[in-house]
Amino acid sequence: MKNFLTTSDLTSDQLNQLIDAAFRFKGGVDNSQPVAGKSIALVFFNPSLRTRASMQIGIQELGGHAVILEPGGTSWTLEHREGAVMDGDKTEHVAEFVRVLGRYCEAIGVRTFAALKNWDEERTDPILNAFAKHSEVPIINLESAMQHPCQALADMMTIREKLGSERKRVVLTWAWHPKPLPMAVPNSFALAAAQMGHDLVIAYPTGYELGEALMETITQRAAASGGGVQVTKNIDAAFDGADVIYAKSWGAKQFYGTPEKDLAARAQYREQWIVDEQKMARTNRAIFMHCLPVRRNVIVTDGVIDSPASVVIDQAENRLHVQKAIMSKVLSAEY
Amino acid sequence: MKNFLTTSDLTSDQLNQLIDAAFRFKGGVDNSQPVAGKSIALVFFNPSLRTRASMQIGIQELGGHAVILEPGGTSWTLEHREGAVMDGDKTEHVAEFVRVLGRYCEAIGVRTFAALKNWDEERTDPILNAFAKHSEVPIINLESAMQHPCQALADMMTIREKLGSERKRVVLTWAWHPKPLPMAVPNSFALAAAQMGHDLVIAYPTGYELGEALMETITQRAAASGGGVQVTKNIDAAFDGADVIYAKSWGAKQFYGTPEKDLAARAQYREQWIVDEQKMARTNRAIFMHCLPVRRNVIVTDGVIDSPASVVIDQAENRLHVQKAIMSKVLSAEY
Amino acid sequence: MKNFLTTSDLTSDQLNQLIDAAFRFKGGVDNSQPVAGKSIALVFFNPSLRTRASMQIGIQELGGHAVILEPGGTSWTLEHREGAVMDGDKTEHVAEFVRVLGRYCEAIGVRTFAALKNWDEERTDPILNAFAKHSEVPIINLESAMQHPCQALADMMTIREKLGSERKRVVLTWAWHPKPLPMAVPNSFALAAAQMGHDLVIAYPTGYELGEALMETITQRAAASGGGVQVTKNIDAAFDGADVIYAKSWGAKQFYGTPEKDLAARAQYREQWIVDEQKMARTNRAIFMHCLPVRRNVIVTDGVIDSPASVVIDQAENRLHVQKAIMSKVLSAEY
Repeated sequence: MKNFLTTSDLTSDQLNQLIDAAFRFKGGVDNSQPVAGKSIALVFFNPSLRTRASMQIGIQELGGHAVILEPGGTSWTLEHREGAVMDGDKTEHVAEFVRVLGRYCEAIGVRTFAALKNWDEERTDPILNAFAKHSEVPIINLESAMQHPCQALADMMTIREKLGSERKRVVLTWAWHPKPLPMAVPNSFALAAAQMGHDLVIAYPTGYELGEALMETITQRAAASGGGVQVTKNIDAAFDGADVIYAKSWGAKQFYGTPEKDLAARAQYREQWIVDEQKMARTNRAIFMHCLPVRRNVIVTDGVIDSPASVVIDQAENRLHVQKAIMSKVLSAEY
Repeated sequence: MKNFLTTSDLTSDQLNQLIDAAFRFKGGVDNSQPVAGKSIALVFFNPSLRTRASMQIGIQELGGHAVILEPGGTSWTLEHREGAVMDGDKTEHVAEFVRVLGRYCEAIGVRTFAALKNWDEERTDPILNAFAKHSEVPIINLESAMQHPCQALADMMTIREKLGSERKRVVLTWAWHPKPLPMAVPNSFALAAAQMGHDLVIAYPTGYELGEALMETITQRAAASGGGVQVTKNIDAAFDGADVIYAKSWGAKQFYGTPEKDLAARAQYREQWIVDEQKMARTNRAIFMHCLPVRRNVIVTDGVIDSPASVVIDQAENRLHVQKAIMSKVLSAEY
Repeated sequence: MKNFLTTSDLTSDQLNQLIDAAFRFKGGVDNSQPVAGKSIALVFFNPSLRTRASMQIGIQELGGHAVILEPGGTSWTLEHREGAVMDGDKTEHVAEFVRVLGRYCEAIGVRTFAALKNWDEERTDPILNAFAKHSEVPIINLESAMQHPCQALADMMTIREKLGSERKRVVLTWAWHPKPLPMAVPNSFALAAAQMGHDLVIAYPTGYELGEALMETITQRAAASGGGVQVTKNIDAAFDGADVIYAKSWGAKQFYGTPEKDLAARAQYREQWIVDEQKMARTNRAIFMHCLPVRRNVIVTDGVIDSPASVVIDQAENRLHVQKAIMSKVLSAEY
């Protein structure tokens, strides 16, 4: 296994070793340059700030060069289906795209969001998996339709940095947003928190459950690591005694393809599901987390995100350090 | 003060020291690499050739890495207003954007043009100032709604390079253009010329005066540095005896929000206000300057821009050298 | 001569020397860094994957920095006509654009596709030639309206790599495509194959001949190098005994400006002109080549492109090596 597609491909021990490595980069203890003189491609089907900047800088700090490509923007549009007769709008097949990049680069990072159009198709992460299938060099998932493992690893590093290595009450809480968003971040956060053995609570209103197959994996991993998983529709109860509040909006699986129905269904939850000072007061002096970008006074109030409880900037900084650890690992001989 | 937002934050002596440093880079005397192994972010809300290329190359020549971000293009759209309820089209607040970038980079350059929609708002340079307010690392102005200090410093370097350090008759002359343009370049050129103690003449037709507050600052700085400031609507008189002709088009403050009115008002000035051979013949063998990009045979005739008097390419080259001086200074301990 | 615009500016010996140099880079024998500490600009008027990635990485492997500019995208739109009154939508003239870049960079690569609107104008490669006319540093053609010499050199290197240096039966075969495409690749491939002394066959249906002036040059160069040139409308006969099948679609000169007529004319050729297993069986165990991106099951069947005969990925890899050879040569003192 040479790719980094989801944390579930790794054991809890392996995840902790990656976090250890990230702390060595952050602390300036590890200054190794395993990518010296080499290139890594970053393929963005969707816009990016943190990922683009932190990957580019991480690669350069590891001694290498980042090559950024934006298919559909400054490059071509890509077909990923096997056997397609390509007489439509797609100009190149992933089969050629990734094999050519693999001749120029040591690894390929790829970002490809869910389009929120077809749950049954998108839940299988088809574009990410086409990259992994055809590539002869390691693929690093920079957020796919269903997973954002670099973010999840930065999240786990941040929890350990702020609260230590003990089991914590970690709450993933849905929030209203003016349009349906992908589930990659909540999926990966919940999965990684379960793998880390935390006491995970997932709070969302009716209709916003995560995918069934993923919930099964999460439950298994929690059991294996001595953690727990709880699901609730009571946001106040969720906040009670929490050590970590992780806010995130996502779209409902049942409304993939009909965003207007999702917006109608969620309208009633706007006021109740925002993270505000009142709800934070119920917690065990919890830290507030979000992957960014965040819509202020929609997902979270200014009062909370600007409070000392907010660790969102540290969390974003840790993206840089974990990604350096991931790249070093993926490109090492023993991975 | 760690930012570089406008030349008026610096004394004339400090500006001259920056120009001295730029000459040392240009002459190959200074080969220091104060950014070695570090990154600087360049945030472009608007397109760029000279600034993008010269900043990227300048950073690399100083030993560092440039990270280019284009919010709204390949990245997110940004909110800058305090307390906003972000349920519209803006996906991230400057407060998070710049603090995250500050964790990855040593400094942030930002380009954000005037939209020419609302004079009272844009004259305060709100986006640039939001960057400066929230950032924990130095902000470098790569052209904001009201200032383009990197350009102005390159302009002053070019005048000194071509004509020496003495006080010169320096004419900033408005020109017709098929659409209203921002005032950042004329503002910063006039301000810097006044700070350098030149005999500044600003020529424009009725209605195209610069902002009142800026004109007050310009007058004060000219007085302090032994220079002079004159305003005229007579373009022929302005050219008489000039040592420097600096052509630039800009929109009228009164027509912010109504570009069609500006175009109607300016139509009559097209023929009269172009820089041509006849007008150049009135000068004291003046050099011709423009910040580029320039529309040939609209702002200036081919005959003038292709003549030996034209120094526009040297002026553009000097952007590289002054920006290296600015970055070195901004990142130095004593700034 | 300091530019690299078309292979016809070079002798067969010079082309072979460039290929020799490319093999030294590929084999790791040549690790020189002739661009150390310097910058090369890459100007893309059109999208790019292979060229962008391979040029950027090639420059970095030669020790330098790539500066990527996209006029019309993240930069300005450019005028190239002499004497133009620039009161339309073009914001800068090539005269300023390239001279400024030349102050920052050692060389300028430029990609500018044919628009397929006006044959008489585009056949003269006006934008590429405006770059060459005004630039004070070498211009490298990264695919212009009429030529793609970097591709052609990689193609010749690949033929030598796979089949040795002997004269081969090299077939350039037209294919159906859902829209008319530029002729730069077939032009440059045919020209370079003739210069290399191959036995060149160009196969296309009625109406799709290459330009007359180019065909004259091809015939002359073939004669000079001991090669041959044949044109046929019989695709089966073309494949008989071929050593190399090079598939490419292009638009008809006569239909520049009327793409719908081209599409109507070509519709009848779709089934017959695809490269499939049956046609490949007629060859002398030929290798299959294409410049990529390629539309699977339109230009070529999955069966052929996925077979051992297909060398398209090696061909794309060789872009990197020949471009390093070209840049080294162009920037060397003796070129």
